[in-house]
Amino acid sequence: MEEKVFDTSLSIEEAIASPERLCNLIDEKRYSELKEFAMEIPAPDMAEMFLEIPSKYHAVLFRLLPKEQAAETFVDMDTDAQRRLIESFSDSELVEILDELYIDDTVDIIEEMPANVVKRIIKNSGAEERAAINSILKYPKNSAGTVMTTEYVRFVGDMTVEAALKHIRRVAIDKETIYTCYVTDKDKHLVGIVTAKDLLISELDVELSEIMDEHVIYVHTADDREEVAAKMSKYGFLAMPVVDSERRLVGIVTVDDALDVIIEESEEDFQKMAAITPTETPYLKTDVFSIWKSRIPWLLLLMITSTVSSTILTGFEAALPAVLVLFVPMIMGTGGNSGGQSSVTVTRSISLGEITFSDLWQVFFKEVRVGIMCAVTLGAVTFLKVLLVDKLLLANSAITVSIAFIISMSMAVTIIVAKLIGAILPLLAKKIHLDPAVMASPLITTLVDAVSLLVYFAVAKATLGL
Amino acid sequence: MEEKVFDTSLSIEEAIASPERLCNLIDEKRYSELKEFAMEIPAPDMAEMFLEIPSKYHAVLFRLLPKEQAAETFVDMDTDAQRRLIESFSDSELVEILDELYIDDTVDIIEEMPANVVKRIIKNSGAEERAAINSILKYPKNSAGTVMTTEYVRFVGDMTVEAALKHIRRVAIDKETIYTCYVTDKDKHLVGIVTAKDLLISELDVELSEIMDEHVIYVHTADDREEVAAKMSKYGFLAMPVVDSERRLVGIVTVDDALDVIIEESEEDFQKMAAITPTETPYLKTDVFSIWKSRIPWLLLLMITSTVSSTILTGFEAALPAVLVLFVPMIMGTGGNSGGQSSVTVTRSISLGEITFSDLWQVFFKEVRVGIMCAVTLGAVTFLKVLLVDKLLLANSAITVSIAFIISMSMAVTIIVAKLIGAILPLLAKKIHLDPAVMASPLITTLVDAVSLLVYFAVAKATLGL
Repeated sequence: MEEKVFDTSLSIEEAIASPERLCNLIDEKRYSELKEFAMEIPAPDMAEMFLEIPSKYHAVLFRLLPKEQAAETFVDMDTDAQRRLIESFSDSELVEILDELYIDDTVDIIEEMPANVVKRIIKNSGAEERAAINSILKYPKNSAGTVMTTEYVRFVGDMTVEAALKHIRRVAIDKETIYTCYVTDKDKHLVGIVTAKDLLISELDVELSEIMDEHVIYVHTADDREEVAAKMSKYGFLAMPVVDSERRLVGIVTVDDALDVIIEESEEDFQKMAAITPTETPYLKTDVFSIWKSRIPWLLLLMITSTVSSTILTGFEAALPAVLVLFVPMIMGTGGNSGGQSSVTVTRSISLGEITFSDLWQVFFKEVRVGIMCAVTLGAVTFLKVLLVDKLLLANSAITVSIAFIISMSMAVTIIVAKLIGAILPLLAKKIHLDPAVMASPLITTLVDAVSLLVYFAVAKATLGL
Repeated sequence: MEEKVFDTSLSIEEAIASPERLCNLIDEKRYSELKEFAMEIPAPDMAEMFLEIPSKYHAVLFRLLPKEQAAETFVDMDTDAQRRLIESFSDSELVEILDELYIDDTVDIIEEMPANVVKRIIKNSGAEERAAINSILKYPKNSAGTVMTTEYVRFVGDMTVEAALKHIRRVAIDKETIYTCYVTDKDKHLVGIVTAKDLLISELDVELSEIMDEHVIYVHTADDREEVAAKMSKYGFLAMPVVDSERRLVGIVTVDDALDVIIEESEEDFQKMAAITPTETPYLKTDVFSIWKSRIPWLLLLMITSTVSSTILTGFEAALPAVLVLFVPMIMGTGGNSGGQSSVTVTRSISLGEITFSDLWQVFFKEVRVGIMCAVTLGAVTFLKVLLVDKLLLANSAITVSIAFIISMSMAVTIIVAKLIGAILPLLAKKIHLDPAVMASPLITTLVDAVSLLVYFAVAKATLGL
C-alpha cells in the first residue's frame, strides 16, 4: 500500500488523511522517499499530521523537512509537540529553527513554554532578536504589542520608487509582509503608508513622499488586540501599524494574525458563555480529562449558586397555593432566556467595540423599552394561556383569574428585570475590568432565576394579600 | 464652532464623532469646504456618519465625495441608506457608481435590494458586468461563489516576470488584489500561483512557470463560505482561488471578505444560541421594534415548549413528597448548563469544520465519558450538600438519606442525558440540513428541562417504591 503514496493519482489531500504512511516510511528507513513526499505537504497540514503521529516519530520526521517548511510547521504545531521537539534539538538545531521564525511567532511559542525551555530559546537567539523578544514580552496581556511583529518594511520619504523596490527585493525574505510599507522620519515617527501596489504602478523616479498616503490609521502598543483586529476588519487592512506613546513605529499586526485573534477571541467568548473554561485545542483532539476539567468548576459553581433559588423556594413554599409552584419552570425559563438575549447581545457589542461603558444609559433605556414590549406581549399570552390551556383544556380547578393574573404579572416583571440585569451586568463587569463574557448566559441565568422567584412570590403575596 | 472642523489640531477621529458639523456645512451651503473636509475621512468612517446624518442630507453629501471614496463609502453603508441613494440617482450617476464597484460588492448590494432597484442596477451595468453578476447570483446561498470576485490577475505560464509586472501595472486599478496572481492554461485551468512578492524578488527574464507554486490549494464555487474562510485562515492566504467543477478558475475570495464571513457567521451563531433571530445591524443602531421582533418569537416558542415541563410537574406533584420539588431548580439548572456546554462545543466545532456527522460515534463516546465523570463528581457533591447543608445546616427535617440519594442520582443521570442530547442534536440537525446553532443552548435547555424532570420523578418513584 505504501507505494501508492507516490502514485500521482493520489492527491496530497488523500495522503494527509493517512499519516500512518509517513510512520511506515520511517520504520522502513525510506528517508529519501519520505523527504520528497513530505516536502509536498503544506505546513498547516503537516502540523496536523504531527498531532496524529506517535511522538517517537516526531524528531526524525521534523529533521527531514526543508528548513522553511520545518519552521512553518513548527509554528502551527500544538504546544506539547513543540516542547518535545525543542527538548530533542541540539543548540545548533534550535538556532537554525529560531532563525527561520518571525519574532511574533517566537514570542507566541515562548509564552506557552516552561521556564527551562524559554531560557534555552532566549540563549540561542541572536542579540537583536533577544532585544525584540524581550520588548514584546513586556507588553500587557492581549495587547497589540503582543501580536505585532517587528519585521516590517520601513522607508524614508525622500527615497524614490526605484530605490524602494530595490530595498524590498533585498529584504523581502525576512519581512512578514512587503505589501504594506511604512514611511517614517529619521526618528521613526510614522508619517505615511505606501503599498506594494502603489510602488508597482508608479513611475520609478517619483519620491515616496509624493505617492504615500498621509492619513495613517494606527494603533498603540497597549491597545486591546481584539479592538485592533476589529479596526483592521473595518478598514480592510492587510497590516496595521503599531506605534509607541510618541507615535514612533514599533511594529505591525498582519491580517493573518488579526484573523487568528478574531477567531480565538470569539471562540473564547462562546466557551465562556457556555460556562466552559476556554481552551484552544480542537474538541476531538482534547482528552476526556481536560474536557471534564474545563467544564466541572463552572457546573459546580452554578449548582451551588442555584442553592439560592432552592432556598427561596423553601422559604415561600409553605405560604403559597401549591398551584403556583407548577409555573416556576416557565417563569424561570423565560426570565433566563430574556436575560440571556440581552447579555449576549451586549457582550458581543462590547467585544466588537460597538459599545462602551459610556453607552450605559442608552443601553439601559433601550432594554427598558424592549423589555416592556416583550413583557406586555408575553404577559398577555401567559394570561390567556393559563386560563385557556391550563384551566379550561387541562381542567386544573385550582386556577382562578387572580392566579392567572399573578402568573402573567410575574412573567412580565421578571422579563423586564432579566433584560436589565442581562444588559447592565456585562457593562459593569467591563468597567471594573472583569470579563463581560463570563457574566453572560449562565451566571446571569442563575441570578435571574433567583430574582424571578422573588418577583413571583412578591407579586403573589401582594395580590393574595398574604 | 463649525470653523474648528478645519483646525489642524482637530483630528479626523474627533471630527468623525460629530457628524452634525457636516450637516451644518450643507445648511450653510459651504460646499467646497465640506468637500475638502469630507475627502479626508476614510470611507468606513464616512459610511458610519451616513448612519448618524438625517437622510435629507445624504444625496448632497454623497455627490460631493470623490468617485472612489463615494464608491467605497457606498459599499459600507447600511441597506436602507443605499436604497434611498440609488433612488435619488439619475441613471448616469448610477452607471458611474457601478463602474467603481467590484463585482462582489455589487452582488452583495443587489441581494439586499427590492426588485425595482435590482432591475435598475442590472439595466445600468455593462454587458460584461451583467454576465458576471448573473453568474454569481446563480450560486447557492452562503457558497464560495457568492463571496468571490471575478476581478483577479491571471497569467499564462510562459509569460516572463517582466511581462507580468507590466501587465499588473496596466490592470491593477481594476483588480481587487494584485498580491496573489494566478497562472492558468489557455482553457483557464488553474495550474499555479505567483505572488507579487515572487515577482518583485525574481529576475525579470524568468518565466512564470519556473517561479510559480504548483501546489495550488483551491475551493469550489459551491463550497460553504464559512469553510472557505476557515481554510484561508488555516493556510494564511490573502486570496483563495475558486474553481468550477472542471477546475477552471472562475474567481477569488479575498482575505477581507473572508474576515467578514468569519465575523458575520460567528455573530449569527451567538445570536442563534441566545435565541435571537440574527441581524447584521449593530445593537445601538437597531430600533427598539426591530430588537423586539428579533427576540419575541423565540421567547414565545420557548415559553410554550416549557409548558411541557409544567405539565410533567403537574402530573407528578401529587404523587411525590413535597420536599423533592425544592430541588427542581437545581437539577433543571445543572442539566441545562451541562447540555449547553456540550451543545455549544459541538456546534462551534461543526462551524469551524473540525467535526462532521461522520464523527458522531466519536463525539458520542467522548461525551458519555465526560458525562459520567461530571455525573460522579456532581452527584457526590450533591449528596453531601443535601445532607450537610440542607438537612443539618438548614435543618430541613423532611430530608432523609433516601431523599438525598434520589436527588443526587437524578442529578447524575440528568447530566449524562443532557450531555448526550447537547452533543448529538446539533450533529443530527446538521445531517438533515437544519441549523446546528438553533439547536444549541435554549432549545436544548428546554428539552433538557423536560427530560430532567422525567428522570427525577422516575428515580424517585423507583427508590420510594411508588
